[in-house]
Amino acid sequence: MDAKLQGFIDKLNKLNFKEMYENDFFLTWEKTDDEIEAVFTVADALRHMRENNISTKIFESGLGISLFRDNSTRTRFSFASACNLLGLEVQDLDEKKSQIAHGETVRETANMISFMADVIGIRDDMYIGKGNKYMHDVVNAVTEGHRDGVLEQKPTLVNLQCDIDHPTQCMADMLHIIHEFGGAENLKGKKLAMSWAYSPSYGKPLSVPQGVIGLMTRFGMDVVLAHPEGYDVMPECEEVARKNAKASGGSFTKTSSMAEAFKDADIVYPKSWAPFAAMEKRTDLYGEGDFDGIDKLEKELLAQNAEHKDWCCTEELMKTTKDGKALYLHCLPADINDVSCKDGEVEASVFDRYRVPLYKEASFKPYIIAAMIFLAKEKDPAAVLKALAERGTARHF
Amino acid sequence: MDAKLQGFIDKLNKLNFKEMYENDFFLTWEKTDDEIEAVFTVADALRHMRENNISTKIFESGLGISLFRDNSTRTRFSFASACNLLGLEVQDLDEKKSQIAHGETVRETANMISFMADVIGIRDDMYIGKGNKYMHDVVNAVTEGHRDGVLEQKPTLVNLQCDIDHPTQCMADMLHIIHEFGGAENLKGKKLAMSWAYSPSYGKPLSVPQGVIGLMTRFGMDVVLAHPEGYDVMPECEEVARKNAKASGGSFTKTSSMAEAFKDADIVYPKSWAPFAAMEKRTDLYGEGDFDGIDKLEKELLAQNAEHKDWCCTEELMKTTKDGKALYLHCLPADINDVSCKDGEVEASVFDRYRVPLYKEASFKPYIIAAMIFLAKEKDPAAVLKALAERGTARHF
Amino acid sequence: MDAKLQGFIDKLNKLNFKEMYENDFFLTWEKTDDEIEAVFTVADALRHMRENNISTKIFESGLGISLFRDNSTRTRFSFASACNLLGLEVQDLDEKKSQIAHGETVRETANMISFMADVIGIRDDMYIGKGNKYMHDVVNAVTEGHRDGVLEQKPTLVNLQCDIDHPTQCMADMLHIIHEFGGAENLKGKKLAMSWAYSPSYGKPLSVPQGVIGLMTRFGMDVVLAHPEGYDVMPECEEVARKNAKASGGSFTKTSSMAEAFKDADIVYPKSWAPFAAMEKRTDLYGEGDFDGIDKLEKELLAQNAEHKDWCCTEELMKTTKDGKALYLHCLPADINDVSCKDGEVEASVFDRYRVPLYKEASFKPYIIAAMIFLAKEKDPAAVLKALAERGTARHF
Repeated sequence: MDAKLQGFIDKLNKLNFKEMYENDFFLTWEKTDDEIEAVFTVADALRHMRENNISTKIFESGLGISLFRDNSTRTRFSFASACNLLGLEVQDLDEKKSQIAHGETVRETANMISFMADVIGIRDDMYIGKGNKYMHDVVNAVTEGHRDGVLEQKPTLVNLQCDIDHPTQCMADMLHIIHEFGGAENLKGKKLAMSWAYSPSYGKPLSVPQGVIGLMTRFGMDVVLAHPEGYDVMPECEEVARKNAKASGGSFTKTSSMAEAFKDADIVYPKSWAPFAAMEKRTDLYGEGDFDGIDKLEKELLAQNAEHKDWCCTEELMKTTKDGKALYLHCLPADINDVSCKDGEVEASVFDRYRVPLYKEASFKPYIIAAMIFLAKEKDPAAVLKALAERGTARHF
Repeated sequence: MDAKLQGFIDKLNKLNFKEMYENDFFLTWEKTDDEIEAVFTVADALRHMRENNISTKIFESGLGISLFRDNSTRTRFSFASACNLLGLEVQDLDEKKSQIAHGETVRETANMISFMADVIGIRDDMYIGKGNKYMHDVVNAVTEGHRDGVLEQKPTLVNLQCDIDHPTQCMADMLHIIHEFGGAENLKGKKLAMSWAYSPSYGKPLSVPQGVIGLMTRFGMDVVLAHPEGYDVMPECEEVARKNAKASGGSFTKTSSMAEAFKDADIVYPKSWAPFAAMEKRTDLYGEGDFDGIDKLEKELLAQNAEHKDWCCTEELMKTTKDGKALYLHCLPADINDVSCKDGEVEASVFDRYRVPLYKEASFKPYIIAAMIFLAKEKDPAAVLKALAERGTARHF
Repeated sequence: MDAKLQGFIDKLNKLNFKEMYENDFFLTWEKTDDEIEAVFTVADALRHMRENNISTKIFESGLGISLFRDNSTRTRFSFASACNLLGLEVQDLDEKKSQIAHGETVRETANMISFMADVIGIRDDMYIGKGNKYMHDVVNAVTEGHRDGVLEQKPTLVNLQCDIDHPTQCMADMLHIIHEFGGAENLKGKKLAMSWAYSPSYGKPLSVPQGVIGLMTRFGMDVVLAHPEGYDVMPECEEVARKNAKASGGSFTKTSSMAEAFKDADIVYPKSWAPFAAMEKRTDLYGEGDFDGIDKLEKELLAQNAEHKDWCCTEELMKTTKDGKALYLHCLPADINDVSCKDGEVEASVFDRYRVPLYKEASFKPYIIAAMIFLAKEKDPAAVLKALAERGTARHF
């Protein structure tokens, strides 16, 4: 076995992540530091093996079920890639083609699609208090189904974005940071600015900023959350960030000045989102079936957004960051000035300069998802990686 | 090889099912008793092997084509699971995304999609006289295509529900019954009630009740078909049921009283369906393109349905069954009182008590489909099962 | 190894096609004669191996991305079959389910879907000057992504039909001709008529006639392009045809008489298309967002088409071909008189007589696509074919 792979295996053998076996992945802050590190390590190991043409297929057959309740390109393809890498065939649950409207329950659907499912990936991020709850309902249903002998295996859930967190995105972002800075050990004292930015489109989910402050505070960094007044994220997530920062020896602060956040920052993540209070109101209106109310709310919010067009990641702002060259992050697609819209989240020249690192950032997502599945499905992941290397099946003959 | 698998192989070796090789599966009553038993046996064997982590992939490559002309969750996922279990990749023929509207014929489409297809699964249940005929047109086309050297292999057809029968559903139901009663040999003299039940939705297919009376009468049971006046099923199916009952030493009777049907029943299957005469009328209106007429007919039928709200599987009725605990069956999703509708097919407490067995009932469908494919694709299925066990490839590495 | 496969390998070893490795397939006339012959040879070899139950899976995992910007049955299934034959799982990029509308660029999307993609197949044939350009944009993006370390592999592009050429179709047509005439060496001096034919539907792409005159002129045949006045194809494609004919010792001529084209023809390909000038006009209107203008243009064109209902492949015309039995070709689906429309491209009795060869013509497409992928992905395709034969894994266990 090559030394690099042996290094990953050695690292895994020092971590305690046995609770991940036959478990699920909802929120990063429900996982221990060791578990988070195990995901990064397995992701790096799987990537390394694929780069060296070693097949990591651990399934001869089996399904990976995907359910997207919002449009998706990169997460859809990342999930498909991850499943394929491990040997699972993706079967999309398209609610429009199903009989779900016939009134069957979540409990029933979850079991009906899972007879041969090893993984279920769900994106459900549109309404506060709904997406994460739905995922738990699904997991409870299949756990019960497995216990009752209905399902031969309990499929593992991978949260592909909920109303609270976007763990596969934020962990891909984080693994990108780790690689760019040459290791997690180099992050202590680094400043990361998670900043709101203007977008002409309304209602972007909160899960990215929430996920970022919930995860990036675990590495001893000084994490600043910046947004105009009224654009708060969920208070629970801020609480998580505060606790994490304390535990990791970093800090978590808030500001309503983008300039302050960017000042001397090592990493910036300027991105639009909707205010939490507005998202809650929208959820209520949705519950009441008040679609006129939702339209009206959206118009108000767009008007409110438009007051903050100055929240843009400009060249000028970038100059104020550490040595003028902070690492720029985005989950993509970004709203780029004069490209995808007139005024947006970022100036075109800034975006262009960071295009390659941005694409690399995205490239970690399939491996993060594959690692989450791998860790849930293998009792001894280190041993399986070793066995795969010894099996030595070529990915490309 | 383990004793259980050897038992399945020994059983297969005693049955005559050689006509199934390179054949199709349209209606259960076109198959001999030995052939039906072969399907159950292979289904059990494949399940046993999967439970013991033995890969049953018999295809390195190949497609399983699915065509759903009606929404579907569980049959879609069952077909996908079955194909995947055997190594076939599902390719869905979405008629909206195809050029079929350009005026190509069934003969042409069937050949064009089949160059590398080993299986075609079709659901087409909406119009009397159409679905089964369509499936035969497809099979005739690919049989001709294979004979003429167009197709290297003749894909096997699996009827995923037509206007006459729902063989994969009814055989899953039946295998569930066999398991619950500890073997087909214990079914003689048992009473099974296939009963109409009220549903607020119009136009449920007849294929389930027709398939149930066509199949369940082959095991020496006393099968009772109960429905309000006017809710007859196809006369040909009743005729099949009568002949089967006679041959198996059971009985087939009809009643217009749900109470009479449930009295002392060992098994009950209360489910809504549309009257055959109305379905025929709808088919005629459809043929004439009279969509206003169809709307009007649907309203009349809903009104007619509403006169029979008392046809519900209540706790009270269940008490009248054998020892008050008949096995409750449903193909799902059920219309559950105060859950999916106000008044429906079954009281919530009854449904809840049977939830686990209902889900188990559904769990047989992927294996039934896989067994149908297996028997059509392997000349000597018993030998192949043995060879797979000896190959010993793990499903999950 | 069997002699036939050895023959294909020997033939490959005499050809120079090393430029195809890690390259793409846009237009047939961008490929050398050796490269075209290599595609035919690998297609025949893969088919031979599949017919002899030898697995040609060269990928353990990997995705084949498809993007269809126009409806498709046979090309969709051909691409899916080809990918599956080589071990790639198809993942369809459905632009309606993606976030592409959010304003992301082609460059970004191309990279985001390609992290584990070995192939991208695109059909984009609706607007002059757009489809081929789009494919180049995608290839440039992934080439850059690969160079920049974003993508571990550069996916190969297969043109599944653009505004200029339909290479997978025309090469399948051509391989069919080669098989029907017993080898490319028998085609010198044969007459092929690519003729316009009437269809009641407007706006069929020009890529088939353009592709046919661009490819079939390379084999020493006398290729005649026939169409009513005003139905010209792209001048650049005619230029290609002229040059090819000259180089191959054949000829390329034009006529506005279907009768003249069919006279003594060995091969006829009567098919409707829209006039190039009209397609250009439509593209302009589309660019201006003038959908009323497009509607109006379509009506004018339908009226114009209707003046040429006599351009039909009749029995009478077929009698004037070589011995009255020219090989009739069509890419399917055809507009058949009194079958798919009142007046169309071909009389029903003609179409029926050629049904089997027509279906065989179509059957080459999956293998042509697989060969294009194979040649782009293998550095030494002859050696890999040999290794696959020696590996001897059964496609169907």
